[in-house]
Amino acid sequence: MTTTLPAPAPLTGFHLYDTTLRDGSQQEGLTLSVADKLAVARHLDELGVTYIEGGWPGAVPRDTEFFARAGEELTLRHARLAAFGATRKAGVRVEDDPQVAALVDSGAPTITLVAKSDLRHVTGALRTTAEENLAMVRDTVAHLVGLGREVFLDAEHFFDGFRHEPEHATAVMTAAHEAGASVLVLCDTNGGMLPHQVTEVIEELRTRLEQAGAGAARLGVHTHNDSGCAVANALTAVRAGITHVQGCVNGYGERTGNADLVTLLADLQLRMGMELVPAHVLEETTRIAHAIGEIVNMPVGTRAPYVGASAFAHKAGLHASAIRVDPDLYQHIDPQRVGNDMRMIISDMAGRASIELKGRELGFDLTGEGELLSRLAATVKQREASGYSYEAADASFELLLLDELGQVPSYSTVESWRATSQRGRDGTLESEATVKLHGDGDGPHERKVAIAEGNGPVNALDLALRSALRERHPEVDDFELRDFKVRILDAQHGTDATVRVLVRTSGRGLEFQTVGVGPNVIEASWEAIYDAYTYGLYKSGV
Amino acid sequence: MTTTLPAPAPLTGFHLYDTTLRDGSQQEGLTLSVADKLAVARHLDELGVTYIEGGWPGAVPRDTEFFARAGEELTLRHARLAAFGATRKAGVRVEDDPQVAALVDSGAPTITLVAKSDLRHVTGALRTTAEENLAMVRDTVAHLVGLGREVFLDAEHFFDGFRHEPEHATAVMTAAHEAGASVLVLCDTNGGMLPHQVTEVIEELRTRLEQAGAGAARLGVHTHNDSGCAVANALTAVRAGITHVQGCVNGYGERTGNADLVTLLADLQLRMGMELVPAHVLEETTRIAHAIGEIVNMPVGTRAPYVGASAFAHKAGLHASAIRVDPDLYQHIDPQRVGNDMRMIISDMAGRASIELKGRELGFDLTGEGELLSRLAATVKQREASGYSYEAADASFELLLLDELGQVPSYSTVESWRATSQRGRDGTLESEATVKLHGDGDGPHERKVAIAEGNGPVNALDLALRSALRERHPEVDDFELRDFKVRILDAQHGTDATVRVLVRTSGRGLEFQTVGVGPNVIEASWEAIYDAYTYGLYKSGV
Repeated sequence: MTTTLPAPAPLTGFHLYDTTLRDGSQQEGLTLSVADKLAVARHLDELGVTYIEGGWPGAVPRDTEFFARAGEELTLRHARLAAFGATRKAGVRVEDDPQVAALVDSGAPTITLVAKSDLRHVTGALRTTAEENLAMVRDTVAHLVGLGREVFLDAEHFFDGFRHEPEHATAVMTAAHEAGASVLVLCDTNGGMLPHQVTEVIEELRTRLEQAGAGAARLGVHTHNDSGCAVANALTAVRAGITHVQGCVNGYGERTGNADLVTLLADLQLRMGMELVPAHVLEETTRIAHAIGEIVNMPVGTRAPYVGASAFAHKAGLHASAIRVDPDLYQHIDPQRVGNDMRMIISDMAGRASIELKGRELGFDLTGEGELLSRLAATVKQREASGYSYEAADASFELLLLDELGQVPSYSTVESWRATSQRGRDGTLESEATVKLHGDGDGPHERKVAIAEGNGPVNALDLALRSALRERHPEVDDFELRDFKVRILDAQHGTDATVRVLVRTSGRGLEFQTVGVGPNVIEASWEAIYDAYTYGLYKSGV
Repeated sequence: MTTTLPAPAPLTGFHLYDTTLRDGSQQEGLTLSVADKLAVARHLDELGVTYIEGGWPGAVPRDTEFFARAGEELTLRHARLAAFGATRKAGVRVEDDPQVAALVDSGAPTITLVAKSDLRHVTGALRTTAEENLAMVRDTVAHLVGLGREVFLDAEHFFDGFRHEPEHATAVMTAAHEAGASVLVLCDTNGGMLPHQVTEVIEELRTRLEQAGAGAARLGVHTHNDSGCAVANALTAVRAGITHVQGCVNGYGERTGNADLVTLLADLQLRMGMELVPAHVLEETTRIAHAIGEIVNMPVGTRAPYVGASAFAHKAGLHASAIRVDPDLYQHIDPQRVGNDMRMIISDMAGRASIELKGRELGFDLTGEGELLSRLAATVKQREASGYSYEAADASFELLLLDELGQVPSYSTVESWRATSQRGRDGTLESEATVKLHGDGDGPHERKVAIAEGNGPVNALDLALRSALRERHPEVDDFELRDFKVRILDAQHGTDATVRVLVRTSGRGLEFQTVGVGPNVIEASWEAIYDAYTYGLYKSGV
């Protein structure tokens, strides 16, 4: 089935093109489910990127499914969805190439075609001729443009190819432009370029394109970090007039990663003065970068520019007194502009300030509560040192705060619990859990003993706890544990390490996270789940 | 005590100046003992850096001790030791400033003095006048040069200061040069510069220095990564004629870190053609970077340029077939030149070509085994779709391959296992596991029932399995499970989700990863641990 779409209006402004879902997922250790991809795409849209490359439909089954589900489940406010694919095969009519048909069938309004532009790759890897390579580009671009698609050309190995032999590299670009491609993207596929080489290639390419009558072509850039210059190379390309940059959130990507799109956005807007997204959107950058890090289970590096936990952290010492005089003297931008915070490491004052801020966020006015803030700061510091992390677990932090305020609700006293998993002689897996508790507060205080089976020990514990609470608090059934993340701390200890569990719960119009830490995954999970029910019941006014 | 040294001969070649032991240790979470510092210094010397900044004697007690012990315990073959310190205090004679005296007493042949060069810092933070600031620079440099020290000037906030008000910034540099400083270092202390700004500042500074009669001054650069451009900014400065670059191994440093000196060295030598260290020294780069990462307990990032574990790892099926033809088409340098290796990552994007390459890496020649490769590719794809990930789990992949070849060893047949965790009435946590199995292969086949306690259910299972295998295979005790990673797949299902566990095991000279997937963390862990013992025993020739 081949659908002709009404040609999408070109996005004339600067293109911030994200390829986290395609090139980013080439990173070692990064594997995204379709649900992950949809969740990342929503965050990218919120970040204000102009294009989201969703994957390679037809080549990767998961990506085919992503585009199918995106059509139904994904409502993008700003971004446009792009499908990645290749030009037609050598010696095959474009109409007969199933890979090209799958791109069309994906329904994506924009299609980014990768093409060889380094003659050595054309003959050595593709094993075809320069002429056929040009025909492949021309045919595929024209075919897709004819079907109403916006087409971008990713010229693979462009910098290496152009520096080796500029005629063919230029001819590929000219062919794509003439066939109707909207953007010609110069890819530093192997990632070895340095900034001055980027400038040289772009300037010479422009001259050659003008000579070929393709001077009006819009250029883009796609960089990798193999020489440690991915971001600088992209910025340099923008200085040289390029208006479309590709990258991945948090610098994910094959080998050393792609240009970090978060850093690029902040650099372009805050250091080069471009107005790419509204100021209030930029203030969400840190939150979004970390949220995506959680989804892909590859946390933002502490040293990441702008959004890393240490990006605006100052070790006490040489700078401390000067920072108190004027923080702007010691930071290159105001961290609030990207939603991050200045932090004084090992500084009671900074700890209190951020807890006051966090309290305000949660609706508690703690102004002037110096002693309470000091106590809370000390507790948080001590608990974070033992493995807790309140960064994501707002609900657990709020319970801690309520506890300090003497307002923490107690719905039950736990006597004991047990969880068992086993594989029997016939190979069947069984998990069951027992929970014994007494009701607290008003109402009957009798002892409850509940048992439940689950498809794992944590699931069984969750069901047994819910069952023990149900009679007095039927509201527990309105909550659902939606996400469950385990991180091993101090990994050098093997199966003997400390474990942190984050649980996301939703229900009764709420969505919140709790945290548990313990010497084993069951104990840590128990703590997070127990907090989740406590918080859920408390917020329900029970 | 003030020692006059014979003035050291200036190092006329390019300066690779490492400040890992001073600026690098400002990184959040990085704390170095004196022994650590000495060990790092030896590695830096081996790497071929020209200067090692050891710390701030006098200001930091540990650094005073470092210089004292370095004099006796540290024999440097190439590098020269530098002490970091500040110019004299405002309103104090340089001879009377104890901080300056401590620098002299450190015995370091080179002293790097930090000075304010941004007028706003002079008046706002230092609370003194421009004239006094210049006198502080002049006096301190002349004093130390008079005592036979080689003196470098670190002009703090130079780029920001120069862009704000170039007269004073230039005057600081001129004063230091006239007083005898060998190198004037432009510091981007807040780390926000972009490459084109670096070029602009250096060019304008040169013009001003020439006008001031200080055109012969040697310039250096010190960059931070707050805009993601630390390495590019240093390279750009070198392109602009600077012959002294400062950085930290692995990019350690305050906030977002300093310029990564490892990346810088490799870029300068391999991509800009400078001969900084002999080729055989460069081949030690990966080993040294990782060794330092171990000492400072902050491992090299997998995505680190040149030396990261993923720096030359290829995942995409698209590339694998071409890599087989010519690896150089797909990497920006030969990884052997920095002592790293190309690696093929097996994933669901992998086709037959990458499996063939992976097999070769593991010592299996699968050339011409088309049918076997197709079967393996299909198995990998199907298992990855159900949650397995062979990217990191080489050992599990090898077991899969051995299975296809009918060579998979079997050491036991598992009858059943059970793992229990509980919290009792008194709050004590207990985890225990039972494993029942029969021996396979040669030797007694009798049934073994083993029970073990652990600090969690997985630890208990590990110990029980080990105990059940021990009598027939005492080699199991040579292995240790070192790392344990849990990933919840399809997280939307909450505690009901599929779980993937990666286990890293070492022993008998081996280090390898195995993977397990299951509906619960216990079952998935069991599979990964069981594979780990199977693989370990097989590789031990049992």
